[in-house]
Amino acid sequence: MAGTDRTIDIPLRPSPAIILVEPQLGENIGTAARAMANFGLWDLRLVTPRDGWPNERAIAAASRADHVIEQVRVFDTLEAATADLSMVFATTARRRDMQKQVYGPEEGAQRIVSHIASGAKAGLLYGRERWGLYNEEVAIADAIVTYPVEAAFASLNVAQAVLLMCYEWRQQADKGEVLPFDGGLDPAAPREELIGLFLHLEETLDRTGFFKTDDKRPTMVDNLRNVFTRAGMSSQEIRTLRGVISSIDRAHLRQRPGRAVNSDDEGTSSSD
Amino acid sequence: MAGTDRTIDIPLRPSPAIILVEPQLGENIGTAARAMANFGLWDLRLVTPRDGWPNERAIAAASRADHVIEQVRVFDTLEAATADLSMVFATTARRRDMQKQVYGPEEGAQRIVSHIASGAKAGLLYGRERWGLYNEEVAIADAIVTYPVEAAFASLNVAQAVLLMCYEWRQQADKGEVLPFDGGLDPAAPREELIGLFLHLEETLDRTGFFKTDDKRPTMVDNLRNVFTRAGMSSQEIRTLRGVISSIDRAHLRQRPGRAVNSDDEGTSSSD
Repeated sequence: MAGTDRTIDIPLRPSPAIILVEPQLGENIGTAARAMANFGLWDLRLVTPRDGWPNERAIAAASRADHVIEQVRVFDTLEAATADLSMVFATTARRRDMQKQVYGPEEGAQRIVSHIASGAKAGLLYGRERWGLYNEEVAIADAIVTYPVEAAFASLNVAQAVLLMCYEWRQQADKGEVLPFDGGLDPAAPREELIGLFLHLEETLDRTGFFKTDDKRPTMVDNLRNVFTRAGMSSQEIRTLRGVISSIDRAHLRQRPGRAVNSDDEGTSSSD
Repeated sequence: MAGTDRTIDIPLRPSPAIILVEPQLGENIGTAARAMANFGLWDLRLVTPRDGWPNERAIAAASRADHVIEQVRVFDTLEAATADLSMVFATTARRRDMQKQVYGPEEGAQRIVSHIASGAKAGLLYGRERWGLYNEEVAIADAIVTYPVEAAFASLNVAQAVLLMCYEWRQQADKGEVLPFDGGLDPAAPREELIGLFLHLEETLDRTGFFKTDDKRPTMVDNLRNVFTRAGMSSQEIRTLRGVISSIDRAHLRQRPGRAVNSDDEGTSSSD
């Protein structure tokens, strides 16, 4: 459960229903439930699941998405399962000879978000593992959602197919909102600290004979500065790197405590 | 196999490697392989899979994604598995106290598309089912990719996590857009060169007593690695930095030519 914060209540905000038509494997029902929970969906409906309900394998695969599993509703017909919904999209990897609008996941999700924002209810249909949805089932949907898959390998596992639309729904619903955590990157240091690091490094390199010839020095200095500017370092990181330079630079002093310090600033103790 | 057209050859176009670190369940490996095939990826790498390889359960779950399964490569270490890659993103649902850029799936996928369009190789890391990636594994990645999940239920099944980035990669790759900001940079070095720099630096720091106590060493190593991975260094830049380390490390030898070289590789002349 890496990353899950169990101190937070799970919000049940308005979101599309996921309707699995005659699902065959309990694992898939459970994995679909988990995928829904990952992205904040919770209304899972089953139309005549092959192995009945409840299903132990589904519960195991749901990986503690209890709030989804406990609310599962089972229906005898697709019509009953969609009765309260005013927008229904059928997901399918197969072209149908049908006068029906086809959306990609992003546009499909956008339409669902708009619909739900207006206070109405929406749902997504998913077919059987072996052969998907029948045409008459697709026919009751407002539109088709299909995925940008490889034509030569187009069949998604049903739980994977559920996941993708849950993800896209969340993306579109949260447009402009931030990820659950950001870089946590500390702010980059003020430029003077970066320059301080540069001068420290370059002084050390001058003293240790790194720049073989004077005419190459400016280019090599620029190249080194480019590496360190790209890293966008924090003040702490700059201090660490200066410690690294000093540590290497003065190692020989520690090995022979008799010698005097011959260089500059930041007098690290050589007592060890 | 609804929707799959088996008369079409499966194209193996340049696409990111998927690297599963110590995957525990064969089913997840197989389902990940299927998800890759759905969206046109094919380079699957396993780091010490728990149950060895080949794995019957993986093959069954792959649902005839044979072209992915047959090319699976197994590695003993993450370093070996990423050696030829010059962009590596770690996927994680967990905030790390780490100085590392974090992308959402869309931006992460865009960056991978640009990188691959430039002729370079990229990969995505996925951790163990039970506890994900260790910090030291995240530390060798250029950046983190995380998903816009529900904070109270954040843990995705590993195959689901693979699917999402495969989907986003395909979405972004098919837009055919190349981001402008990769333009002027030399290509990033293969990961093995970066690891070589890390080991060189850390060996030098061990020898010079930089790490005051053993218990702080791992965190300090991760912090240093984070700085250098963020810089996205080229091979030339890595060579330069190794020269910098050697130059400072051996300065005292040049000052007293009588002393023998006491350290490692890259014997810079001490004749001056």
